[in-house]
Amino acid sequence: MQRYRLDIAYDGTDFSGWAAQPGRRTVCGVLVDALSTVLRAPVTLTVAGRTDAGVHATGQVAHTDLTADLDTAWLVRRLARILPPDVRVRAVTPVPPEFDARFSALRRHYRYRIATAPYGAEPLRARDTLSWPHPLDLDAMRAASAPLLGEHDFAAFCKRREGATTIRALQQLDWSDPDADGVVTAAVAADAFCHSMVRSLVGALLDVGRGRRPVEWPGALLQRTERPSEVAVAAAHGLTLVGVDYPPDDQLAARDAQTRRMRTLSH
Amino acid sequence: MQRYRLDIAYDGTDFSGWAAQPGRRTVCGVLVDALSTVLRAPVTLTVAGRTDAGVHATGQVAHTDLTADLDTAWLVRRLARILPPDVRVRAVTPVPPEFDARFSALRRHYRYRIATAPYGAEPLRARDTLSWPHPLDLDAMRAASAPLLGEHDFAAFCKRREGATTIRALQQLDWSDPDADGVVTAAVAADAFCHSMVRSLVGALLDVGRGRRPVEWPGALLQRTERPSEVAVAAAHGLTLVGVDYPPDDQLAARDAQTRRMRTLSH
Repeated sequence: MQRYRLDIAYDGTDFSGWAAQPGRRTVCGVLVDALSTVLRAPVTLTVAGRTDAGVHATGQVAHTDLTADLDTAWLVRRLARILPPDVRVRAVTPVPPEFDARFSALRRHYRYRIATAPYGAEPLRARDTLSWPHPLDLDAMRAASAPLLGEHDFAAFCKRREGATTIRALQQLDWSDPDADGVVTAAVAADAFCHSMVRSLVGALLDVGRGRRPVEWPGALLQRTERPSEVAVAAAHGLTLVGVDYPPDDQLAARDAQTRRMRTLSH
Repeated sequence: MQRYRLDIAYDGTDFSGWAAQPGRRTVCGVLVDALSTVLRAPVTLTVAGRTDAGVHATGQVAHTDLTADLDTAWLVRRLARILPPDVRVRAVTPVPPEFDARFSALRRHYRYRIATAPYGAEPLRARDTLSWPHPLDLDAMRAASAPLLGEHDFAAFCKRREGATTIRALQQLDWSDPDADGVVTAAVAADAFCHSMVRSLVGALLDVGRGRRPVEWPGALLQRTERPSEVAVAAAHGLTLVGVDYPPDDQLAARDAQTRRMRTLSH
């Protein structure tokens, strides 16, 4: 057997998220079906980010163990023919056995797109852009984002889950200026995210940007031990997982051990 | 009354093209319904490019005559609320009475997107990108494109239409290198295009790029007086109308007269 890394992209609109659920169309379910059909054997996938229903990915990563003599270029072409157009396997690459898509990951990168033009989102990007046809105070949003950077307990921004830590290291939370179509993009990176964390951060900062909350409010929420009802969770369809970082091969095992020790439930 | 320019964008996937047809969902039909509802009066639209079923636009232009005291910012916001997400009016601008979206236009700009990666098109761009998971000889396609530039009779690339000229001035036919996702983009501009002309040009040049036709073939087709069956029409969904150029206000009337004299049927 040989371990392989799969680089995956999907339009989350018509999926009930990543994780396989009986009777639902999920990204993992569709991929496992296609891989099992092509390879004529059961296949399981371990994924870096278990995205929610409606969330997209351009840079999702998973791993699986398959036969050592696999023609990876052939597999990519075969999958392109049988997968539906809303999910693609961009690449299949042999990796060391220590590579674990979830536990070896150093950090996850997300983007959240917000269309602020009076006419809303460009039709060809309406599926991955929140339509928010109002002005945003980007200076206030940037000032409110700064205190969130670093390692904190993000319980105020997480859907509660039994036994899961909500301590995360937020490494990036940048807001772009509006582009030519009026789209503001949030670039967010952390070692891992707890459930609905990016969308809760974006929701809280949008309330600052529209003047409904003061600049100090999101930072003050870090004192909370659970998510208050005032924190709005921004709509899923604006969110895209754009990449996952891994350490060099000789540090994969150490990173895996470190992550499992921290018992982070990665998203 | 006052003439207004409308800047329009749409995802053509679920439309039977621009032109209103009974019983079909068309861009013009949906826009006229929305405008008539908001303004409580019948509205007619004259458009720069009557795009076919499945073709998209980010830079479509139309004109209409409405009351002189119209609050255009209010109209854009109102339309954003009642139009479906797959069509947007980006702007409504007062223009001189000589402005004619169709006959005053100097040139139309189109883009055609082709995904050449082995896995096909990125899911979030699958609606506006042709999936062509094979290598393309871009040098051959560029060499084959060069002789098509300038004023020619493009009958070989046009769907025949009674009484319509097929003489057009092709001003741009550029092929980009593949981007990070393997997408090659053709940038095409002409004073006007006859029916299915961009898609026929792309189809012929794709046959050169895949090695099925020699570099000389597209240029030699300019001698034909009608479209031969060998010219494949590339799929509609790869094509987007991205912009329309107009002269300065003091030259609008002269351009309009010149265009009507040439009896070009503009697309």
